[in-house]
Amino acid sequence: MNVLIVHAHPEPRSFNTALRDHSVKILDDHGHAVKVSDLYAMGFNPVAGPADFGDRADPDYLVYALEQRHGHEMGTLAPDIAAEIEKLMWCDLLILHFPLYWFSVPAILKGWIDRVLISGLTYGGRRFYDQGGLKGKRAMLTLTLGGREHMLDSDAAIHGRLNDMLKPLLQGTLAYTGMTVLPPFVAWHVPYVDDATRAGYLDAYGERLRTLDSLAPLTFPSLDTFDDAMRPK
Amino acid sequence: MNVLIVHAHPEPRSFNTALRDHSVKILDDHGHAVKVSDLYAMGFNPVAGPADFGDRADPDYLVYALEQRHGHEMGTLAPDIAAEIEKLMWCDLLILHFPLYWFSVPAILKGWIDRVLISGLTYGGRRFYDQGGLKGKRAMLTLTLGGREHMLDSDAAIHGRLNDMLKPLLQGTLAYTGMTVLPPFVAWHVPYVDDATRAGYLDAYGERLRTLDSLAPLTFPSLDTFDDAMRPK
Repeated sequence: MNVLIVHAHPEPRSFNTALRDHSVKILDDHGHAVKVSDLYAMGFNPVAGPADFGDRADPDYLVYALEQRHGHEMGTLAPDIAAEIEKLMWCDLLILHFPLYWFSVPAILKGWIDRVLISGLTYGGRRFYDQGGLKGKRAMLTLTLGGREHMLDSDAAIHGRLNDMLKPLLQGTLAYTGMTVLPPFVAWHVPYVDDATRAGYLDAYGERLRTLDSLAPLTFPSLDTFDDAMRPK
Repeated sequence: MNVLIVHAHPEPRSFNTALRDHSVKILDDHGHAVKVSDLYAMGFNPVAGPADFGDRADPDYLVYALEQRHGHEMGTLAPDIAAEIEKLMWCDLLILHFPLYWFSVPAILKGWIDRVLISGLTYGGRRFYDQGGLKGKRAMLTLTLGGREHMLDSDAAIHGRLNDMLKPLLQGTLAYTGMTVLPPFVAWHVPYVDDATRAGYLDAYGERLRTLDSLAPLTFPSLDTFDDAMRPK
């Protein structure tokens, strides 16, 4: 299995980064090939803009998704985007690995999504959800956060359910592009827990990575149940 | 009323930008004071990182929220962050104005949230939701998107409900910091509609801005109904 870990944490000595390093070792020990895009270490540019295109279908008016399609067809996407797309297409499993910022990904990782998951390849026209361009790949979120599980484990919890907060990522991004989405791996309350608890998270994540095939994926819409205007049949 | 519009669109000639300009005129005509943070025009840096702090509580290990608190107390936050905080604290109404990217804000705007909504001022400890640091201010999302309303108007719609997709923003960001959250203003199917429909969106947005006081805000959790461990009472 080829695994791409897209990682975003500003502190190289963080527990989040240790969890990433641990996962690389576990995956490597099990014979998988692993690539890591460490966005902070790469100085990745997260801002979608005109400089992303070496050639423009319309130099005077930027429609970002149309220029993504044009740039992909012509091979004129910016080199940093093209390099990430190559890793994305290589992988069988994509892991987005991050600390939760405002119940979402840090901006540097949002920019990886904005710039790398290009129209014309990962989605476009009727190619989304179970017809998405990345069909056949699996994806997973791995996140650390400050909150406790009881704050995000039911409709009555103070923030509701974690997977509802993550809906734009789980459904609107990963499932939208056709990937099979595994349940998120979550390390709770990280800044406040003791070393034994952190060691427990490392062990649990190792176990998770060894048993991916036994996990039931999350379920999302199928285009089969919608008509051509995307209304429910 | 003082209004801060935080705007993120890479094409200055876009309809999204025209909608922003229209709103500035309407608000100005009605005697409100308006400031615009045009993140693309400013070249705003969205990446939360060590350079955000002129002085560090801990120079060796970055805990971003702790350094936000320290930097705010010491007055040593990076100048671009301090300038945005000053506008934020000045405003009575915050409008985040953007095209929907992956059912969320573009990365440049996510970075404004990550870097400007600092711990120790906008939230921290038990200061969140109806006890949040920005209590008394109102906030609204104004967004343009390619999808049609029937794709996001019910649980049975292909993407579910728009406000569920926007939950990390509406609840997890705006309400979390204590702001009163107004319903989003949405212009649907923008790349595909005719000029008359676009003109209709401009009119509808003008009407929305003239009638903000008559809008029922969205509802979110109150800390009164949770105990000290944030479990439901």
